[in-house]
Amino acid sequence: MAKTAGIVIIGNEILSGKVQDANAAYLLRELRLLGVDVKKVSVIPDEVDIIALEVATFSRQFDVVFTSGGVGPTHDDVTIEGIAKAFGHRVIRHPELERLLRSRYGGDLNEARLKLTEVPEGSVLIREDGLWLPAIAMGNVYIFPGIPDLLRQKFDSIKERFRDQPYFLRKVYVKEGEGNIAAFLHDLLREFPELMLGSYPEIRNPAYKVMLTLESKDEQYLRAALERLLAMLPGDFVHQTH
Amino acid sequence: MAKTAGIVIIGNEILSGKVQDANAAYLLRELRLLGVDVKKVSVIPDEVDIIALEVATFSRQFDVVFTSGGVGPTHDDVTIEGIAKAFGHRVIRHPELERLLRSRYGGDLNEARLKLTEVPEGSVLIREDGLWLPAIAMGNVYIFPGIPDLLRQKFDSIKERFRDQPYFLRKVYVKEGEGNIAAFLHDLLREFPELMLGSYPEIRNPAYKVMLTLESKDEQYLRAALERLLAMLPGDFVHQTH
Repeated sequence: MAKTAGIVIIGNEILSGKVQDANAAYLLRELRLLGVDVKKVSVIPDEVDIIALEVATFSRQFDVVFTSGGVGPTHDDVTIEGIAKAFGHRVIRHPELERLLRSRYGGDLNEARLKLTEVPEGSVLIREDGLWLPAIAMGNVYIFPGIPDLLRQKFDSIKERFRDQPYFLRKVYVKEGEGNIAAFLHDLLREFPELMLGSYPEIRNPAYKVMLTLESKDEQYLRAALERLLAMLPGDFVHQTH
Repeated sequence: MAKTAGIVIIGNEILSGKVQDANAAYLLRELRLLGVDVKKVSVIPDEVDIIALEVATFSRQFDVVFTSGGVGPTHDDVTIEGIAKAFGHRVIRHPELERLLRSRYGGDLNEARLKLTEVPEGSVLIREDGLWLPAIAMGNVYIFPGIPDLLRQKFDSIKERFRDQPYFLRKVYVKEGEGNIAAFLHDLLREFPELMLGSYPEIRNPAYKVMLTLESKDEQYLRAALERLLAMLPGDFVHQTH
């Protein structure tokens, strides 16, 4: 079984269409490359109770959880409070974060900025080279900022801890529509029930009509399934194999 | 109270990072322009029971629900079955859809393509000019295809039925960081508790550090809040107001 993950994107700006989220797509690509099976993404508003419920549910259902957004000094940054509530913990000021912020802001460390030192009690700081502020983990929940550059920097610095067995992927581009290949796919899955098989119509590219994706963590199994599919499909159906 | 909505994006290809979803962002922008308050977006896999549970929950929690993906002739298209299960209904072949598909495919209407005539029993077909296949609604759940061009075409043709009172939006671009303006925002919200106020740091554009968004369905209230904010902020904090 692959390690499972869930992603919680927090922010009214996303739900109201003012800012387009880029973090979910980034994390989905990165986690797949690491061999992690992301089971769900949620986009929810900056509301403590909603965050608490969603994070508590995700934390129980998945091996690891990543949150994006809602950490900062202003009124709408309530992710820390929400995650603390999910675990039934208090919010505390972390002395190490306070020390780091004091060394940066000195006398400018006002009440608003001190909010950046807050974590759910029991959180772990993950210090890695190149991060001036450590990543924060509460149980299996990794708390990231919403600013894409900062999220990527933090995720990149800690991602090796999530690595699992890789997925192997092959693609077959087919010149016939789904309606003409569905029966072959059905037969293929009867022979290879463990195969992850996707079928995606393409209406803009005239060169092919469907992209098939075949995936497995077992490279041999994948190779056998691909050979079987190519043997099944009439030769003039296939545009390309990758 | 604004009309509320939820969006369920269905597809292993999204969760596995192979295809980047464009439908959520599109629907979020369009629904906001219509005055609809989207409360949640979920991205879930092509699995009947997961779809059934998510759609049932969304259908209870929100006024309208939109699904994207998982409708088509292949093995991984299980959205119709999932939504039927959410409502405890059977899947049936809709005679009107069968008639339309027969007129298009004639003798090529094989078993796989007949799957496109399936709907949860009790569904309503919404016929609009320009659609060769009608949109499908089961209760308050609108079922869209995952192909972005087709989703947009269908949504666009039926969107007026969702229109509500509009949101009014103003933006203030501020040259100071969030840590220096958080207290002003806090005070503003004490005076204008109904204001939807967002604060979004920008680290790439040197011209400003934070974009503030002020929103309300009450234009007068919004104008008063904006005036109050501009009176509070030191004049040299403000880069631009839109």
